[in-house]
Amino acid sequence: MTPRHTVLPDLVLEPLVRGALTEDLGSFGDVTTRAVVPGSVQYSARINAREAGVVSGMQVALIAFRLIDPSLHLELLIGDGESCLPGDTLMTIEGRAASILSAERVALNFAGRMSGIATLTASFVAETKGTQTRITCTRKTTPGLRTVEKLAVLHGGGFNHRFGLSDAILIKDNHIAAAGGIRPVLEAARAHASHMMKVEIEVDRLTQLEEVLEVGGADVVLLDNMDTGTLKSAVDLVAGRLVLEASGNMKRERIAEVAATGVDYISSGALTHSARTLDLGLDF
Amino acid sequence: MTPRHTVLPDLVLEPLVRGALTEDLGSFGDVTTRAVVPGSVQYSARINAREAGVVSGMQVALIAFRLIDPSLHLELLIGDGESCLPGDTLMTIEGRAASILSAERVALNFAGRMSGIATLTASFVAETKGTQTRITCTRKTTPGLRTVEKLAVLHGGGFNHRFGLSDAILIKDNHIAAAGGIRPVLEAARAHASHMMKVEIEVDRLTQLEEVLEVGGADVVLLDNMDTGTLKSAVDLVAGRLVLEASGNMKRERIAEVAATGVDYISSGALTHSARTLDLGLDF
Amino acid sequence: MTPRHTVLPDLVLEPLVRGALTEDLGSFGDVTTRAVVPGSVQYSARINAREAGVVSGMQVALIAFRLIDPSLHLELLIGDGESCLPGDTLMTIEGRAASILSAERVALNFAGRMSGIATLTASFVAETKGTQTRITCTRKTTPGLRTVEKLAVLHGGGFNHRFGLSDAILIKDNHIAAAGGIRPVLEAARAHASHMMKVEIEVDRLTQLEEVLEVGGADVVLLDNMDTGTLKSAVDLVAGRLVLEASGNMKRERIAEVAATGVDYISSGALTHSARTLDLGLDF
Amino acid sequence: MTPRHTVLPDLVLEPLVRGALTEDLGSFGDVTTRAVVPGSVQYSARINAREAGVVSGMQVALIAFRLIDPSLHLELLIGDGESCLPGDTLMTIEGRAASILSAERVALNFAGRMSGIATLTASFVAETKGTQTRITCTRKTTPGLRTVEKLAVLHGGGFNHRFGLSDAILIKDNHIAAAGGIRPVLEAARAHASHMMKVEIEVDRLTQLEEVLEVGGADVVLLDNMDTGTLKSAVDLVAGRLVLEASGNMKRERIAEVAATGVDYISSGALTHSARTLDLGLDF
Amino acid sequence: MTPRHTVLPDLVLEPLVRGALTEDLGSFGDVTTRAVVPGSVQYSARINAREAGVVSGMQVALIAFRLIDPSLHLELLIGDGESCLPGDTLMTIEGRAASILSAERVALNFAGRMSGIATLTASFVAETKGTQTRITCTRKTTPGLRTVEKLAVLHGGGFNHRFGLSDAILIKDNHIAAAGGIRPVLEAARAHASHMMKVEIEVDRLTQLEEVLEVGGADVVLLDNMDTGTLKSAVDLVAGRLVLEASGNMKRERIAEVAATGVDYISSGALTHSARTLDLGLDF
Amino acid sequence: MTPRHTVLPDLVLEPLVRGALTEDLGSFGDVTTRAVVPGSVQYSARINAREAGVVSGMQVALIAFRLIDPSLHLELLIGDGESCLPGDTLMTIEGRAASILSAERVALNFAGRMSGIATLTASFVAETKGTQTRITCTRKTTPGLRTVEKLAVLHGGGFNHRFGLSDAILIKDNHIAAAGGIRPVLEAARAHASHMMKVEIEVDRLTQLEEVLEVGGADVVLLDNMDTGTLKSAVDLVAGRLVLEASGNMKRERIAEVAATGVDYISSGALTHSARTLDLGLDF
Repeated sequence: MTPRHTVLPDLVLEPLVRGALTEDLGSFGDVTTRAVVPGSVQYSARINAREAGVVSGMQVALIAFRLIDPSLHLELLIGDGESCLPGDTLMTIEGRAASILSAERVALNFAGRMSGIATLTASFVAETKGTQTRITCTRKTTPGLRTVEKLAVLHGGGFNHRFGLSDAILIKDNHIAAAGGIRPVLEAARAHASHMMKVEIEVDRLTQLEEVLEVGGADVVLLDNMDTGTLKSAVDLVAGRLVLEASGNMKRERIAEVAATGVDYISSGALTHSARTLDLGLDF
Repeated sequence: MTPRHTVLPDLVLEPLVRGALTEDLGSFGDVTTRAVVPGSVQYSARINAREAGVVSGMQVALIAFRLIDPSLHLELLIGDGESCLPGDTLMTIEGRAASILSAERVALNFAGRMSGIATLTASFVAETKGTQTRITCTRKTTPGLRTVEKLAVLHGGGFNHRFGLSDAILIKDNHIAAAGGIRPVLEAARAHASHMMKVEIEVDRLTQLEEVLEVGGADVVLLDNMDTGTLKSAVDLVAGRLVLEASGNMKRERIAEVAATGVDYISSGALTHSARTLDLGLDF
Repeated sequence: MTPRHTVLPDLVLEPLVRGALTEDLGSFGDVTTRAVVPGSVQYSARINAREAGVVSGMQVALIAFRLIDPSLHLELLIGDGESCLPGDTLMTIEGRAASILSAERVALNFAGRMSGIATLTASFVAETKGTQTRITCTRKTTPGLRTVEKLAVLHGGGFNHRFGLSDAILIKDNHIAAAGGIRPVLEAARAHASHMMKVEIEVDRLTQLEEVLEVGGADVVLLDNMDTGTLKSAVDLVAGRLVLEASGNMKRERIAEVAATGVDYISSGALTHSARTLDLGLDF
Repeated sequence: MTPRHTVLPDLVLEPLVRGALTEDLGSFGDVTTRAVVPGSVQYSARINAREAGVVSGMQVALIAFRLIDPSLHLELLIGDGESCLPGDTLMTIEGRAASILSAERVALNFAGRMSGIATLTASFVAETKGTQTRITCTRKTTPGLRTVEKLAVLHGGGFNHRFGLSDAILIKDNHIAAAGGIRPVLEAARAHASHMMKVEIEVDRLTQLEEVLEVGGADVVLLDNMDTGTLKSAVDLVAGRLVLEASGNMKRERIAEVAATGVDYISSGALTHSARTLDLGLDF
Repeated sequence: MTPRHTVLPDLVLEPLVRGALTEDLGSFGDVTTRAVVPGSVQYSARINAREAGVVSGMQVALIAFRLIDPSLHLELLIGDGESCLPGDTLMTIEGRAASILSAERVALNFAGRMSGIATLTASFVAETKGTQTRITCTRKTTPGLRTVEKLAVLHGGGFNHRFGLSDAILIKDNHIAAAGGIRPVLEAARAHASHMMKVEIEVDRLTQLEEVLEVGGADVVLLDNMDTGTLKSAVDLVAGRLVLEASGNMKRERIAEVAATGVDYISSGALTHSARTLDLGLDF
Repeated sequence: MTPRHTVLPDLVLEPLVRGALTEDLGSFGDVTTRAVVPGSVQYSARINAREAGVVSGMQVALIAFRLIDPSLHLELLIGDGESCLPGDTLMTIEGRAASILSAERVALNFAGRMSGIATLTASFVAETKGTQTRITCTRKTTPGLRTVEKLAVLHGGGFNHRFGLSDAILIKDNHIAAAGGIRPVLEAARAHASHMMKVEIEVDRLTQLEEVLEVGGADVVLLDNMDTGTLKSAVDLVAGRLVLEASGNMKRERIAEVAATGVDYISSGALTHSARTLDLGLDF
């Protein structure tokens, strides 16, 4: 994973950060700091890691401090996608104390959450070592934060699934039912899908997989809630003709075993909906 | 906790829901459903709990389905703040299959997260049984979702801390340092704070607490990272003259013990930043 | 093309329509109508086609009239994706004259433009009759109107290319140059692209196409500015192993000939950037 | 036409450009460039004209590149309102290749469309040479783009009609019918119009024009769909007492003839709704 | 003044009202009402006038109550532009007490301000009785509220000046200085102004007025800070060839005298920037 | 009042200023200046006070000029919260004449209104000299401008009441009635209010005040529409146990007398809804 994979233009991220700052500042700003911190006080602060992990959210934190006060002097020491150890300084911030104190919480809320996702993702990726299997997220993201959460998955060495409902076709059991079966659903998908859109279909047993292979028209198959033996059989059956994604209750403990079956992707909603916040702090 | 405490006008919540739907629909909507689900198909669906917990996010889910398709017929069976058991149906949705499928993920992403927070909060509250101690959240919320996360804390039986930087004064160690000590910081706070704004000050040892009592001007004291014995001493020292909030590493295992000291509030960032998503599903 | 392929939730389209109405109404509304049309006047109006074509923008027009006045009675006679002849009535609108007059121009500006694109697209599609070749648009759309213009292409029987920069990979000559050649660029693309993202690469001569086939990793090849003979050679060379898209100066006169080569897609920016407005009028 | 007539504060244009960039970048940016272009690559690029015309949209293009990357070095060689020949370089852009590639399409989509409008307008203006007749646009603009399209008309040497419904009174046939005739409609207009608002009335035959002159209260008369002889008679009849605007099917071939009648303005919706995109390209 | 002159589509007003409600509700709604008012309480409330005046802001108040709770039953008794006496009921509102209490302040803040402007305007208009002189506002409005304040001026029987900087030309002393005198400034204005845009020029002495008449090109002259005798001389000098607007320190006490001079318009910034709020209250 | 009490991050104020500029510039900017002011003209301008008062709105004015033209050279001479005399220069602005003329009105509309509020507030504060009584505003602010109006109250030496409905509890007569009396309403408030939220209750006679003291649970009592004698009795009765706020028809003439009773706060809606604009002008 090279760094170039993990940077978005500030233009894309800035509205999210501005929204979060506005949420926290409300309509009347940081009343505590205004009341008690003399305007002349200058601080030198550091964002420090309090535990080991993979860093994410530093670009976002930089934007947050700059939006509050463009005169702050910011230096990034450990960037998005890099590892940190307890005590490591990720960023230094120098300038008006009032500005630093007002932006602190929002910067840490983003960075803690994103680093938590990156760290959890990296722990999944570590389990795939020695295989070709990739770890990927889902659409089970925090409402409004999909961009930064998918970015954090990249920072952790994972891959992204489709961004939302409009950029790829993913046919689930209810779609199959509504369309009248695997054959009609795949025919409908192919009739409407453009050449720039992948088609994935979810199956939960091998007979369905056989039908998908026979009908054609799918690029990817989501193997839902299969045990490891069945997953292995699916890999053997497909023999490289389709991309295979294993999904459903993919806890970290099970990743190595599933990766060993030869599936191409393992997807997990937990990467984004259940990651623990990485403990970061601002020290003065 | 009566239900009237936990309802916001739809006007406040709708922009969040609209934003999340737009995030998911992108600029071109649900391509899968458009391609494969005939417009005439009608579904009857249910949001079911797959585990026990306290429900939150039903008002939000109702808004999500209505925004996608005002013609859907929605019925709420278990509302925000009520408990659910595995298999319980929280809501029924009837109408166009395409509409239900397009709104499903956003509704569940909100409701799963909010119910997770409500459930975790309720488990903290349960530990305070038989005491006067209340559980409260912090500003360690998901950027952009503070409103719904603080609402979920209420649904779980907890209380809210200040909403953001502008509605109450919370003096932390860095503020004390910048102002030159506890006396000057409290004097500055009182000089500027209006009569409608509470003043809280953070201390981490009893000598600081004594100084706060002596100087006056604080309504609430945040007792940061104290062991249980020290907390008890603080309660004894204050003897009801100030509201006391215990904070710092307040895991559920420790709540009963801390509540027994007689502190008025126990605050925990984990309620919002580390709650596990409650497992909810949409069944047809 | 079934109708289900060409409908978006109003939620997606409404902000565009609201924006256009606001642009036209300014901050003070329709001063002419306020000054001279008595509030009691009721009109019965019709959107009529003044020339033959394929209709698009009726859903948008319905939204426009409803936003101005929810009490208007609207009836759709010829919907998006259907053909019209000169004199055909597409929609009837009954109610307050002031409301109809205030919404008229915005409704027609959208519908005329969208029907123009649908009509031009249909004329390209007609040229592919008897082949498997599909017509597709590009990103050369009107800023801010990509959603409705891509929708109009669907209404005309065409297909959509990627929506924007984030939903598929399209490697152009400058990307190849920056990456150091076809092999490294395709390797980089595959290393970073997820399984849900198509990879297309642009080539302008057959030797490049051979290299693409050899290296692998592409799903689609854009054959840029090739003459018909070269296109035919490309089709023969690829023999179904990749999807082929012919592009570059694809005027309608040339479509039949190009389609006959067997390319899978013909793309044309002119569909969106140079379509003539279809002549529609509002008659009372 | 001096340049000072054709510049808007960036503040007015920036939201449009930001919106278009966001539309193209989606929620996840330029995945191709991120995947394949090393961050260290620097480009020197030029926006070149591939055909002759009148340039418009350079201010907008400058804003687009700056929004994506403020560190780009931009130099404008041929500004808005100036003429270009095939091969002319309008602007040079130097800096990060990834930034240039990500902003290219939006900059060109705006500039191609605006230059097309300016060029078409200039070709109409050229036909009025030697007369006092001015060319003007209408409200038949692209939804959401009225500001830049009216600006492009100025760049082409034309004049603007009212911006929207709220800044001038234009009485059309349906208004006359609703108000009960020319006399009552003009009396109503004058009773309500302020001294800062022009009143224009549309007529399609000379007897109506006579009534307008007799009743008074109009500043401008729109002569709708009249043949050249009738237009000449109208000019003679009015004898400078009112401003006359000829409208309705005003193709370029007819402009010289109509201008020769002595009408003050010729208006054409085609300037904005049917201009062909000027062919501009970004070369590296 | 007929009612049709004073109604805007809700679409134009709704964003203002939504913004004001959001400002008041903050991110967490009406905590008082949630805490203490049982959800089942129903109220019947009335907006009553506590003093005599001209009513404005009723359309806005209706929108405010509907946005908070569409189920409220609203009845308008005295509409915008009508007079009220102390004790008159302007509107009745029935339904959930919590909804009424949450919307009350915003509705009254708008209606009190707008009615204050309408009342002050009406008092100016009363002074012009028996003359042709009209009362008009300026651009000295409250930032963000120009639409509703200009509407209130209409409700009070006044007329509007230009809405903002883009809909008419108003040449002030600094423009004259920058352009090099009255002749060059009027020539520049005419060279650039379209036929749909009025040109007004400010003069502060009669010799300037003579030059304006001689040069031509102006539609309206603003007579700035002249005494009544000079205004009379200006009216005599112009003899109906131009529209005359008297401005500068136009207090109500002076209106009758100024109107008697025969000027066409008297403009006053005080109508919008110094109107006293009309005392309205919500009674239960 | 130290300056640190009265500064908000530009981030909070900028959207308001941007909105006001957009309102004034409309969609097509300052047509007068574009038409008549050569782009090369440079001005040196000053914002001057035409009467004595307390200055507010300078931060806002700085933002307005910078948003229109970042190249303007701005120097602040008399800042927010400082006093001015007639003829004093508050700020100097140098640079492009067109930019200064386009931003002038918005800057002055904000600064005149805000300085008017600060000046009126200061005149109330002056009446409290020698007492501990503080002056405070209410929620009777201009819709959309609460932030800047509350800021202006601070600049004038006053204090702020709650910002809106969500940051403090204020129980009024209708709440008491709905809850069934003072005891149940205070019990409900305390049951739901968090420790960071003040509780105020409105009473209009001493027997109510006695009940409030007996029941407990309130932090502040609003003494509504009491005569001075009754206010004095209330102060005696409470004897420092609660904060007392006198409200209702608090005209400046009465402030000294009311302050002498010993109430802690005097609140007045007139500070924000009826302040006269301070006369400021831009001179060149």
